[in-house]
Amino acid sequence: MDKPLKYAVFGAGSWATAIVKMLCENLDEVGWYMRSVYTKEHLLKEQHNPNYLSSVEFHLEQLKLSNDINEIADYADVLIFVIPSAFMHSELEKLTTNIENKIIVSAVKGIMPETGLLVGEHFHDVYKIPYDNIAVIAGPCHAEEVALERLSYLTVSCSDAEKAQIIANNLSSHYIKTKISDDVIGIEYAVMLKNIYAIAAGIAHGLGYGDNFQSVLMSNAIREMKRFIKRRHKMKRNINNSAYLGDLLVTGYSVFSRNRMFGNMIGKGYTVKSAQMEMNMVAEGYYATKSAHLLHEKNGKKAKIPIINAVYEVLYENKNPKKVFLKLTEKLD
Amino acid sequence: MDKPLKYAVFGAGSWATAIVKMLCENLDEVGWYMRSVYTKEHLLKEQHNPNYLSSVEFHLEQLKLSNDINEIADYADVLIFVIPSAFMHSELEKLTTNIENKIIVSAVKGIMPETGLLVGEHFHDVYKIPYDNIAVIAGPCHAEEVALERLSYLTVSCSDAEKAQIIANNLSSHYIKTKISDDVIGIEYAVMLKNIYAIAAGIAHGLGYGDNFQSVLMSNAIREMKRFIKRRHKMKRNINNSAYLGDLLVTGYSVFSRNRMFGNMIGKGYTVKSAQMEMNMVAEGYYATKSAHLLHEKNGKKAKIPIINAVYEVLYENKNPKKVFLKLTEKLD
Repeated sequence: MDKPLKYAVFGAGSWATAIVKMLCENLDEVGWYMRSVYTKEHLLKEQHNPNYLSSVEFHLEQLKLSNDINEIADYADVLIFVIPSAFMHSELEKLTTNIENKIIVSAVKGIMPETGLLVGEHFHDVYKIPYDNIAVIAGPCHAEEVALERLSYLTVSCSDAEKAQIIANNLSSHYIKTKISDDVIGIEYAVMLKNIYAIAAGIAHGLGYGDNFQSVLMSNAIREMKRFIKRRHKMKRNINNSAYLGDLLVTGYSVFSRNRMFGNMIGKGYTVKSAQMEMNMVAEGYYATKSAHLLHEKNGKKAKIPIINAVYEVLYENKNPKKVFLKLTEKLD
Repeated sequence: MDKPLKYAVFGAGSWATAIVKMLCENLDEVGWYMRSVYTKEHLLKEQHNPNYLSSVEFHLEQLKLSNDINEIADYADVLIFVIPSAFMHSELEKLTTNIENKIIVSAVKGIMPETGLLVGEHFHDVYKIPYDNIAVIAGPCHAEEVALERLSYLTVSCSDAEKAQIIANNLSSHYIKTKISDDVIGIEYAVMLKNIYAIAAGIAHGLGYGDNFQSVLMSNAIREMKRFIKRRHKMKRNINNSAYLGDLLVTGYSVFSRNRMFGNMIGKGYTVKSAQMEMNMVAEGYYATKSAHLLHEKNGKKAKIPIINAVYEVLYENKNPKKVFLKLTEKLD
């Protein structure tokens, strides 16, 4: 890795926009693929994303914008995917260029819904990317606070520590501190699971449970997360590090979290469909719940995961949230 | 323990009032000592505490009220102290009756400021109470939510599991779930330390740090708490249980926490004195910070406790909160 690596971001949501902003603090040029022609034109004309973090002004000379995923994939050495997991499949279908020698970074906050594979596993299986070239970016980090340049901490995880450090350095700035980790799989699961717990927090809130209960829920959630991840990928990790516990907290306690909002609507009596229609989007945790449930079944149900099970029953088995959570309260401590 | 034990609560703040309410769900009579003649008269006339949780109506036939600490100490077998740690010393000075054979329960959220002893240690040292007769009640539990009968979880800790269970049973109801533990010392420290972290969260908020940073702060705080307690009392404990992590979260994330409010004022530029005057009270965490600092010094500074140190520098060494927290951000991850 002698010549400087070229970076590109795939996606134009708030988290993608925040990551482009972070990279622009360090790099002369950042590739940026987005599906929407309108978003690209707006960026070219107004120097900001029309839909997300619109207060962030970009310098156009730093951006290599394109609506062609292959053009940007060809351009860059480090491909950072920040696309909702539900759209990953359809976006990747357009990818025809060879990415075998690229470094793939997932900032997708979920799991491939079609296969239940982690994003890293997907790239390894389908594109033959070696695990040493697969990295993950994790929070705790609301994109909105990146826009405001409020101090945030990121963890970049890759089994190749040198690569993790290079990527981390290029994300660091006066408002972004980074650390590296080698627990790619554990962190990918944590990122996915936290959204389920945020839905649970939202359901509880919608049902009228208070702050005392929320703190018990979060305290049980981190223990459940630890058990779940340990069954999937056993290694030494401190589940209370920022990438796991911190990320759970920033999502679970945020009134802005879309997953929490989705859960809140369910708790207040919306059906799953009407909540999704009202929000005009599908919360990542919705897919994550199904994937986690399936993984748990496959795994012989060996870890106790009462919170995930409760959310699954509400979202996929059409069970009454009030009754399900009443039963759940007996299982928490 | 054949005949049913008589219980009494000492103190008339919001947490004391909440505990009396919980006990009244199970017992025919509860002793209740309070310093204020006015509070007692008001309770007798209006059936509620004039100053705290005034929505909670008591049945007078269930209460044995007194302004005489010795009368209530004589009356009961289980003495539950719920007095701010700063007033424990002056209240206990009035205690002349022999309490050697009583069960002592601490629901004090702090440490004896004069000696740096845990409340349990104080009763053991001064009153010769055997450790088997000393228990602790821990949250996570805002008293206000008990008043609303919102589901809350308590942990009762005693080295004698049977006693812990009896006390726990008498606190349990349709809105209170309890568990027992044998980590009296660890839980007493956790209850005390969480208030320091709540002050830290308040200072950070007052200085303009956002939710991303708060979650990193909490994630570091629970790891710091684990290290601190381990140095004081090594035993197998899961720091993510509700009595430790849950209690930290309910306090650290609560806008109602007096400790967080106190920190917030400091972060916004109040001096320690003016914040205390404005609040018309001293937050528990203020004393806890000094005690934790002293314990750390005595202990040869073996555990890393950057958050406690930062709060100590701000509160006791008159250092600039902005500069202290800027330095702190370098030590978190």
